[in-house]
Amino acid sequence: MNIPGDEFYTLLAAALNHRGEETLQRALYLALREAILCGRLLSGCRLSGSRVLAQQLNFSRNTVNAALEQLTLEGYLLRNRQGTRVAQRVQRHAAEKAPEPAVTLAKRVSQLPAPVPRNTPVPAFTPGMPAINYFPLPLWRRLYDRVLREEGSALLGYGDPAGEPSLRVAIARHLALSRGIDCDASQIVITEGALEGVNLCTMLLSEPGDIAWVEDPGYAGAKSAFVKYGLTMVGMPVDDEGMRWEEKNAASPSLIFTSPSHQFPHGSVLSARRRLALLALAQQRKAWIIEDDYDSEFRYVGEPVPAMLGMIKNAPVVYLGTFSKTLFPSLRMGFMVLPPALAKATRPAIGALLRGGHRAEQRALALFIEEGHYARHLAAMRRLYRKRYRQLREALSAELHVAHRVLAGEGGMHLTIAIDGIDDRAIVEQARAFQLAPAALSGYYLDTKQGQTGLVLGYGNTSASQFAPGIRRIQALITQQRGGKA
Amino acid sequence: MNIPGDEFYTLLAAALNHRGEETLQRALYLALREAILCGRLLSGCRLSGSRVLAQQLNFSRNTVNAALEQLTLEGYLLRNRQGTRVAQRVQRHAAEKAPEPAVTLAKRVSQLPAPVPRNTPVPAFTPGMPAINYFPLPLWRRLYDRVLREEGSALLGYGDPAGEPSLRVAIARHLALSRGIDCDASQIVITEGALEGVNLCTMLLSEPGDIAWVEDPGYAGAKSAFVKYGLTMVGMPVDDEGMRWEEKNAASPSLIFTSPSHQFPHGSVLSARRRLALLALAQQRKAWIIEDDYDSEFRYVGEPVPAMLGMIKNAPVVYLGTFSKTLFPSLRMGFMVLPPALAKATRPAIGALLRGGHRAEQRALALFIEEGHYARHLAAMRRLYRKRYRQLREALSAELHVAHRVLAGEGGMHLTIAIDGIDDRAIVEQARAFQLAPAALSGYYLDTKQGQTGLVLGYGNTSASQFAPGIRRIQALITQQRGGKA
Repeated sequence: MNIPGDEFYTLLAAALNHRGEETLQRALYLALREAILCGRLLSGCRLSGSRVLAQQLNFSRNTVNAALEQLTLEGYLLRNRQGTRVAQRVQRHAAEKAPEPAVTLAKRVSQLPAPVPRNTPVPAFTPGMPAINYFPLPLWRRLYDRVLREEGSALLGYGDPAGEPSLRVAIARHLALSRGIDCDASQIVITEGALEGVNLCTMLLSEPGDIAWVEDPGYAGAKSAFVKYGLTMVGMPVDDEGMRWEEKNAASPSLIFTSPSHQFPHGSVLSARRRLALLALAQQRKAWIIEDDYDSEFRYVGEPVPAMLGMIKNAPVVYLGTFSKTLFPSLRMGFMVLPPALAKATRPAIGALLRGGHRAEQRALALFIEEGHYARHLAAMRRLYRKRYRQLREALSAELHVAHRVLAGEGGMHLTIAIDGIDDRAIVEQARAFQLAPAALSGYYLDTKQGQTGLVLGYGNTSASQFAPGIRRIQALITQQRGGKA
Repeated sequence: MNIPGDEFYTLLAAALNHRGEETLQRALYLALREAILCGRLLSGCRLSGSRVLAQQLNFSRNTVNAALEQLTLEGYLLRNRQGTRVAQRVQRHAAEKAPEPAVTLAKRVSQLPAPVPRNTPVPAFTPGMPAINYFPLPLWRRLYDRVLREEGSALLGYGDPAGEPSLRVAIARHLALSRGIDCDASQIVITEGALEGVNLCTMLLSEPGDIAWVEDPGYAGAKSAFVKYGLTMVGMPVDDEGMRWEEKNAASPSLIFTSPSHQFPHGSVLSARRRLALLALAQQRKAWIIEDDYDSEFRYVGEPVPAMLGMIKNAPVVYLGTFSKTLFPSLRMGFMVLPPALAKATRPAIGALLRGGHRAEQRALALFIEEGHYARHLAAMRRLYRKRYRQLREALSAELHVAHRVLAGEGGMHLTIAIDGIDDRAIVEQARAFQLAPAALSGYYLDTKQGQTGLVLGYGNTSASQFAPGIRRIQALITQQRGGKA
């Protein structure tokens, strides 16, 4: 219609009769807006004055005026001394006819590692999951509440992009004592778990198309970071001395990702001679080593292995730590330790990229460390996991009858067993029906079809009573897959 | 030395005498390790048996054996029936001589926006900062504690990568009522503020080298995301109807970033006709619009402007929301609303990229919304900010004597004033000394040297008593910069 008459009022009245919880003004606004968008009120069409409209609709003139003002503000109406008109080109005809937008994802998306299913409660054998029911939650709640009570709203704003200073000081002290790393708070950046650390290193230290060495098998999170930034990954095999490489053949990397203290998922420790050789190689080729120290606090044979970062002066190493394994995963807290010159050079970028959030959690964690709760919790978990480690070894000896090798792994919270000639991903898929969530060893390889098959059994959050029945069930699934032959 | 004799024991004894808090075993391990690394104990050198060592050092044999075992585990020593020898190539000579690694950052790092200084307490006029001292913190503490008390350790593990279902349901309900968006929880992904939303959209929906349209001036966070992923940014000017573009000249974008409800920092509302035209353009060119709805809950003239996402069916729009402005920044909580097909297509990638953390915070926020506290807080803040907005306008009229234009901005928590012919970044720099932190308008442009100069004055967290003295101080700085002429 061009000149709104009775039909217009009928339309408006109908819309207003059907209004829900909105105010009259809002309902009138919505009805007029819809009438314009759908083309019932044509461009250029002149509306009656607010006095007439108010009379016709039996509304107050204020209500009508407010709705007209809003539509004018948003550009549906033009108001001037001559009156109120519908604006040009405010009908959605054309746009409305289009089908749902076609979805074409970026090419890199297809190269991302497979997502890990997450369930609550956590199924038995889930790798990477600490004993969350042993975490001193009442104490944590008290500390968190104390921080917010004492600091109040000051902690609600943005903080230092690198993280709360008190937490960075506490971490530096802990690293000196437990990991042989001599650093100060200015070298530490708090991150969302270790994953954000890999993302930041990749963003800051590599160009698209550069080469990244990764351990093969290795940590999926690192691969997702390298995929995101368009790096070419070269997989390095892993044996009982950790990552292994052929110097002469390999193209020079920009980044070398390694988990030297406890290779994930293989479990081996990068030997002293390979550590030194890798450090020398990185120096020669101007590469950075990203040292993922995800669970080195837990070792059951001997002591935690010192970090590569502290091994030589001026090591070209960025150290990544996480509290996901030592405290709890949903805390999403980790950190990077950068060499002094790198810390200085990246400060403006860190300021542009990070926002300094989760301040109360960071302050609570600083107290948790400084007051000694962290060291106590680590010691308790070390005892618990050591016990579970031995119990799981016993359960494997007793219940797993298929030929297998337990790969080195006297530490952390998982055991990796190599089993030749099984479809490990099928076994893992079937095991989910029984509330068991081991991971397929082959899934950690760059080429998942070429990898060693086997199972990664997390025992951090699995009680010993679940070990024997769980392994029996897995044995049964393997037997079934092999057509009844164990 | 090749065969350790007296000299060796002297060396060990000296190291052990200087031990700190370590156990004897740890001290012995460290002393031996250092002797090997620094080359005092040569490769192939044979150590005395543990019995002899224990006698010489006056330690228990267990202590000595444990230290030797640890060094063997780490590859410094080789032990077999013939005895204990130092391994090959475990001296750090070569690596140690290298200088501190040269730092060459990725090229893109130089294109990142400048970092924003963050101070506690927050200085007056800081943009983007809500009234954090009005946030109902005791209530929040109770809700957070209640969630952890009731749910216990179940919340400590990884959650749904897209975020807690209860929060996503609460957000969907809120969006339907307040933003005219009809969506369900499966379309919502919880993010670390709006920034992670832009990062994810860019990662998932564009290739390096693609074009992104950005508003110029515009939000720095979007620019950092586009820089990270190697997009080419094309700046679109902004006027009183929002973003403006020339269809024929511009190369086709993959992504169009806009803040239509309240352009940042200009303050204008994208008009209905431009919204429809932009939607049609995105459909034709198969681009995605990223709609940044950062502070639209706050409008002081009229009602919040409905989102573009709900404007037409099948809109090619990803909607970004944040709680940084409506609750508090250090919460670091935001969300994306994806069209259904996009939500479905990106689910595996979201599962690979996100970890589902901060579960207790997310549950507490769900309760905060569902129990009506969120709506009440929004209403209270709307009243507060409306008042502050008017008071700041008055202070500007009374105290700012330099020629200036107040750009549209009847909403949100900042006012932008254009002032020609000043060095706005110098003024901002000088104002910091007086605990004032307005932002320089020119700093929000792609080419910061070409931008309109002026000041962005945040009033969300600035009490009215600071307005007049603050503006007087700014006036004085401008007068001073102009050599005494106002």
